[in-house]
Amino acid sequence: MADALFTEMLQSVERAVTENAPRAEGLLAPVRDMLLYSLESGGKRVRPLLALLFCDAAGGDWQNALPFACAVEYVHTYSLIHDDLPCMDNDDFRRGRPSSHKQFGEANALLAGDALLTHAFYLIAAGEGNVSPAQRVRAAKELSRLAGAEGMVGGQYIDLAYENKEAGGEVLFAMDRLKTACLIEAACVMGCIAAGADEEKINAARDFAVNLGLAFQIKDDLLEYNDEANSDVKNGKSTYVSVFGFEKAEALTAQFTEKAVAALGAFGENGEALRTFAGKLLNRTK
Amino acid sequence: MADALFTEMLQSVERAVTENAPRAEGLLAPVRDMLLYSLESGGKRVRPLLALLFCDAAGGDWQNALPFACAVEYVHTYSLIHDDLPCMDNDDFRRGRPSSHKQFGEANALLAGDALLTHAFYLIAAGEGNVSPAQRVRAAKELSRLAGAEGMVGGQYIDLAYENKEAGGEVLFAMDRLKTACLIEAACVMGCIAAGADEEKINAARDFAVNLGLAFQIKDDLLEYNDEANSDVKNGKSTYVSVFGFEKAEALTAQFTEKAVAALGAFGENGEALRTFAGKLLNRTK
Repeated sequence: MADALFTEMLQSVERAVTENAPRAEGLLAPVRDMLLYSLESGGKRVRPLLALLFCDAAGGDWQNALPFACAVEYVHTYSLIHDDLPCMDNDDFRRGRPSSHKQFGEANALLAGDALLTHAFYLIAAGEGNVSPAQRVRAAKELSRLAGAEGMVGGQYIDLAYENKEAGGEVLFAMDRLKTACLIEAACVMGCIAAGADEEKINAARDFAVNLGLAFQIKDDLLEYNDEANSDVKNGKSTYVSVFGFEKAEALTAQFTEKAVAALGAFGENGEALRTFAGKLLNRTK
Repeated sequence: MADALFTEMLQSVERAVTENAPRAEGLLAPVRDMLLYSLESGGKRVRPLLALLFCDAAGGDWQNALPFACAVEYVHTYSLIHDDLPCMDNDDFRRGRPSSHKQFGEANALLAGDALLTHAFYLIAAGEGNVSPAQRVRAAKELSRLAGAEGMVGGQYIDLAYENKEAGGEVLFAMDRLKTACLIEAACVMGCIAAGADEEKINAARDFAVNLGLAFQIKDDLLEYNDEANSDVKNGKSTYVSVFGFEKAEALTAQFTEKAVAALGAFGENGEALRTFAGKLLNRTK
């Protein structure tokens, strides 16, 4: 049951991510190609799926959440392009292909990221879907706050600031709350907004997102612990495993997952697909 | 008369640009400092003033346009930070001070630009001012379209693509239409939207903006023609003067100015302050 829904949603997301790209014709056609290169590079689409699943769980028609779901994926994609730049993580590859700046040059990758971030807000303001201006404004407010200086970008700043010094558990949590959980929060909350959900459900979605985001990040560290090719492990960066030890980190990811699933109580039986989705995410082996 | 209005508006813009910055406390306090460093670096505030003047000319209370005016200035400021980066123009100075990346490092400058762009949409969605959700959505749609892949960022792409080859007049016009005029268009149109202006006035504002933007850019080339320290002149980049000759370029700037001023006819007597402002901009000597 849930699997059929995931498949249908994923296909809709893939189609919408491409269809919603800026047209950019004539002299600008190469810009469109650069954006699609990164947008279509085969991510797991976790964030847009969460937006659709929350819209569905809150009793809305999930098709209405597609523009919001795409907006979050555009923001996620821009953040990866800028993160890969030489002045940041300097990653030559992303999902098995040359990263944007290796493919198109640094300046073009910078612009591609800027264009994707800007277009995310175009999708919120002008994307198709039966959502009112008030819902669009609320979605734009959530995304801009959660992706900005006090959200995702703030988390990236902290990450940089601790590049060459040891981070304790408190800093790790603060950083990942911002860097990872904020954009997941935006996805979950925007799904609720598209459904016209009440504040109780929106707050439950936040609670789910923050705990899932942290569980997700700790799980990453656990999976990477034995991966000597991983750059964080190689560079001796602080991780949940290095700070808390493997067993404690495993216990932490279980605790956060439990809290995330508990928050879904606000959606009653309608939260079933989300429970399944969260389970899949946190039991993954790569 | 007009001068007193300009002064009052400019003071309001300066205050609002600072007050509307993300709070970013604790670990994130340095992010706020980085944003304010660029926001408070003494620009002419041409775009926010145009937003306020158009709101006023369309019969609105220009205070209501302040969040939109700030949003445009945040976008302008982000574009300068990213433009100055080593992979773009590689400028060490901006308005007589070290550019953002010289002051804070490349990675932080990249993030500061990203944060400003994101926050622009927060100001549209959540900024104070008596504007409806529908007006906010319309403003977000205009700004995201005009600042994105098919607008300002598209213009920067063309600029890069012609960095090492000669551009004819057609390419110069296409580039500056996007790179410079689009954000001016956003400012003028968003001022009208804040006033609840009809489509006739909005279209007149577009017409004004596009012509003013081109006149402004050609004027820049004329002023820089004798400035041997200017990087475009030094690098032999195509300019309106190199393509059309000095006299023809002077005639062009006068033609575009005339068209811009003619568009203000739609605002009747209320367009007077804008006529004065346009005259000041285009008769400037530096």
